[in-house]
Amino acid sequence: MISSFSNPRIKFIKKLRIKKYRDESNLFYIEGPRIISEAFSNNWKINQVFYSEALIKDNFTRDLVEKLQNENIECLEVDKQVFESFSVKDGPKGIAAVLEQKNFEIQQVCTNPGLWVAVDRIQDPGNLGSILRTIDAVGGKGIILIDHCTDPFDISAVRGSMGSLFSIQIIRISGETFIEFSKNNKLNIIGTSDKASIDYQAISYQKDLILLMGSEREGLSEKLINVCDKLISIPMVGKNDSLNLAVATSICLYEIFNQNRKLSIL
Amino acid sequence: MISSFSNPRIKFIKKLRIKKYRDESNLFYIEGPRIISEAFSNNWKINQVFYSEALIKDNFTRDLVEKLQNENIECLEVDKQVFESFSVKDGPKGIAAVLEQKNFEIQQVCTNPGLWVAVDRIQDPGNLGSILRTIDAVGGKGIILIDHCTDPFDISAVRGSMGSLFSIQIIRISGETFIEFSKNNKLNIIGTSDKASIDYQAISYQKDLILLMGSEREGLSEKLINVCDKLISIPMVGKNDSLNLAVATSICLYEIFNQNRKLSIL
Repeated sequence: MISSFSNPRIKFIKKLRIKKYRDESNLFYIEGPRIISEAFSNNWKINQVFYSEALIKDNFTRDLVEKLQNENIECLEVDKQVFESFSVKDGPKGIAAVLEQKNFEIQQVCTNPGLWVAVDRIQDPGNLGSILRTIDAVGGKGIILIDHCTDPFDISAVRGSMGSLFSIQIIRISGETFIEFSKNNKLNIIGTSDKASIDYQAISYQKDLILLMGSEREGLSEKLINVCDKLISIPMVGKNDSLNLAVATSICLYEIFNQNRKLSIL
Repeated sequence: MISSFSNPRIKFIKKLRIKKYRDESNLFYIEGPRIISEAFSNNWKINQVFYSEALIKDNFTRDLVEKLQNENIECLEVDKQVFESFSVKDGPKGIAAVLEQKNFEIQQVCTNPGLWVAVDRIQDPGNLGSILRTIDAVGGKGIILIDHCTDPFDISAVRGSMGSLFSIQIIRISGETFIEFSKNNKLNIIGTSDKASIDYQAISYQKDLILLMGSEREGLSEKLINVCDKLISIPMVGKNDSLNLAVATSICLYEIFNQNRKLSIL
């Protein structure tokens, strides 16, 4: 059992809060039975599991530790106080894990066609997490993060995604490369802009498309606007001139989804 | 010019970060030219304005201070360091204000009929702010906060609302009183639940209704479910079983809004 706060493994977990160390190691930290179970069932590579017997209160978590041990995943028991020292939860449930990141290449958009979302310089990890949840909900394939976006492997984004992170593909790319690739591959890109004259409900969406969203503060850059096949806007009748980014993305995603589904039974 | 950090007015501003002091004084703090201008144009009562000449860099802010002074609103100049000591922004623009809260009674739902949102124990101020933005965008009348909700006058909720807070009505009420009022007044309440069998797109929404949403963690309580005329759900085809609360609320609000509007010109 690890009982020292200065154990190198414990020190390393804490470092994973900082993007620099996540990038260097290609690892990230998650916590809680539900999300770890989600990662496991989606075949993400779990490097280590950390658990504290003293904190585990339910059978689901106990069974999970056993299942992970049986899969030959390194499961390290840690002292309660040590666990609490790196936990990011108010009431820690006694299980945490270090996972390998999965980053995909832009070619996935062609080899795994369907509904994708691209976002230009999204800043808020909570917004990113919420968008990942909606992509999962509408059966989308993944997200393309253009230029300097908030890190999808940041603990706030992971938590905000409620595990949806594990069922979709994540691509990180520069604006230039994205523009070049989209031109060479004639991608079907629908951009959003509050200046666009096309109502988001007034067009028919194809099954394979990229919904392109701008950043919270600045919207889409001129260069990205130029690669869009169409520019749509969501009508608003109030005093404010914009919606929250995760809300706007989700409203568009549900319109695309709704055009291609049958209504549930009354 | 106020140059002391221990000036009672400055100490009081800082206290307004705590809900207890906001409740006691019925006041709250806002910062930045855009949001203050929004509050002013919506006729909210501004008690004091605090500004720092050294921090003001643009004419909009300069003109705003002058306009507020001309309206006989107390405008106090403070030292740059003092302003920075209470500022909640990364790059403060040199203007802040203390405002009186506006809380409405539940009777407003009858005297000001239209589209309302009610939320049961919403916890995240960012979610609340995002919902206020969407209510404003679809021309909704206001929000009913049931039982222990996050404070709409918390700085994160105010910022998240991007000023939408000032154009809608806020009602705070206990679950019991809400249930009693809704029965006595035969309110048209549409609840949401992931267990509901009615697809949110499968019904026709009346113009006057209350969209009732549950908390992030627990959804709607049994008691509140019982006052709903209908229970709807948003279909999901992914691995996750829920959407972010602000996203789910906004998707429903836009469905209601879309059923009652004409499409914009192509």
